[in-house]
Amino acid sequence: MSTDPGTRAESLQSLTRGLAVIKCFDAEHADLSLSDVARRSGTSRATARRILHTLEDLGYVRLRDGRFSLTPRLLELGGAYLASSSLPALARPHLSDLTAACDESSSLSELDGDEIVYVARVERRRIMSVAIGLGTRFPAYATSMGRVLLAGQPAEWAAEYVSRVELVGLTARTIVDGEELRAELERVRDQGWCLVDEELEPGLRSIAAPVRDADGRVVAAVNVSTTTRRSVPEIRAQLLGPLLECAREINTDLASLRGR
Amino acid sequence: MSTDPGTRAESLQSLTRGLAVIKCFDAEHADLSLSDVARRSGTSRATARRILHTLEDLGYVRLRDGRFSLTPRLLELGGAYLASSSLPALARPHLSDLTAACDESSSLSELDGDEIVYVARVERRRIMSVAIGLGTRFPAYATSMGRVLLAGQPAEWAAEYVSRVELVGLTARTIVDGEELRAELERVRDQGWCLVDEELEPGLRSIAAPVRDADGRVVAAVNVSTTTRRSVPEIRAQLLGPLLECAREINTDLASLRGR
Repeated sequence: MSTDPGTRAESLQSLTRGLAVIKCFDAEHADLSLSDVARRSGTSRATARRILHTLEDLGYVRLRDGRFSLTPRLLELGGAYLASSSLPALARPHLSDLTAACDESSSLSELDGDEIVYVARVERRRIMSVAIGLGTRFPAYATSMGRVLLAGQPAEWAAEYVSRVELVGLTARTIVDGEELRAELERVRDQGWCLVDEELEPGLRSIAAPVRDADGRVVAAVNVSTTTRRSVPEIRAQLLGPLLECAREINTDLASLRGR
Repeated sequence: MSTDPGTRAESLQSLTRGLAVIKCFDAEHADLSLSDVARRSGTSRATARRILHTLEDLGYVRLRDGRFSLTPRLLELGGAYLASSSLPALARPHLSDLTAACDESSSLSELDGDEIVYVARVERRRIMSVAIGLGTRFPAYATSMGRVLLAGQPAEWAAEYVSRVELVGLTARTIVDGEELRAELERVRDQGWCLVDEELEPGLRSIAAPVRDADGRVVAAVNVSTTTRRSVPEIRAQLLGPLLECAREINTDLASLRGR
């Protein structure tokens, strides 16, 4: 291996900065000038210009009236993940069944760093629905899927997570004490599911179960989310059964995929 | 502007190649070795290694047992587009209504190069549904949304498109004659909607209408897709009304967004 360290550092930088420029854009920053991009990405104007023109050449950015915006071609990058990962596609029909059985939205998440990422979701149709798209991220400790995923990690990893991560009280009910969270994760591991009651957002309740690969490793979590119009005992009585059934079916499909 | 052309070319290359490496991965190529990535992306092993390690550092790629795969963090790049474009979010509730009214899946697309890209979709629940995710691309000429988008472009652009693009017969019914397509686009422009009957895939029918911004420019297309279980006259009688109503509502929302 004959890597010139200078070259490696340089490549790192322009690829890293290019991806950072894409992430400069969001709902509040949909159209940006060259100066805006330079400021938000922390690069010089010259660097920002080179990156934007490269992204424009590739069709990921368009320039109109002196302002840059993102194009839908960017969906192909997330699409590359969705196409190459069998899990979201395999889970989707089971999530559909779960949403129909419970008349509530259901989702599949994976752990990415200290956060969960939604990789599949089937919404219940209603006038006001919580708008959660694929790629939405939440801190793992405050969500039912996150706790299931944390409980499924090796004990040392989970212990390190709990001592490292700052537990922020997102509502008055969020567990913010490390000892308490550790005990809760142990409980979740033992019972095989997790119910979170208004810890992420007031009015929201959800219940989650782990998805395991053929080796029994927890690779994802599936959940059903509802509101306080269902009491905690009702959620256990009405939603837990279909949820565990859904997780079992995804596990079975995952194992048979492995066998092929 | 004092851009060193040498530097610009270099930046272009590593960002361009980095994005090309992401696109090496798909359903048939979910786990790739370093050599696989080098071959599929047309780069040297040394370059592929630098790129993969950069992407791994950024959390977009993971290495397990000597093979690389993509992570769900990539969804944040497509998510940057979805967050910064108001159109998909604004259209989604109207698509929900349309899907409910028609009992068929509905979608929103934009034109990207010579193809349409799905940017929002609300599926009808059914046992066997056509799996079309966000970011899915089809050639514009063979789809109802594509023809609506083509018909909405300036006349010279559309004429250039028709003479440039190779019209491939995707089914026995696909229009593959340039003159015929030109006439069809004119008809679509005049009538304000487009019905495509088994030209993209046997058994599929769809009907689309344009979405316009406050200046009257066609910026997207909305459609309802169904199968041959609905006849063409039934589609016109049952689906066209709700479709045009949906397009009107999205147009109104877009215009009021502009006014804010």
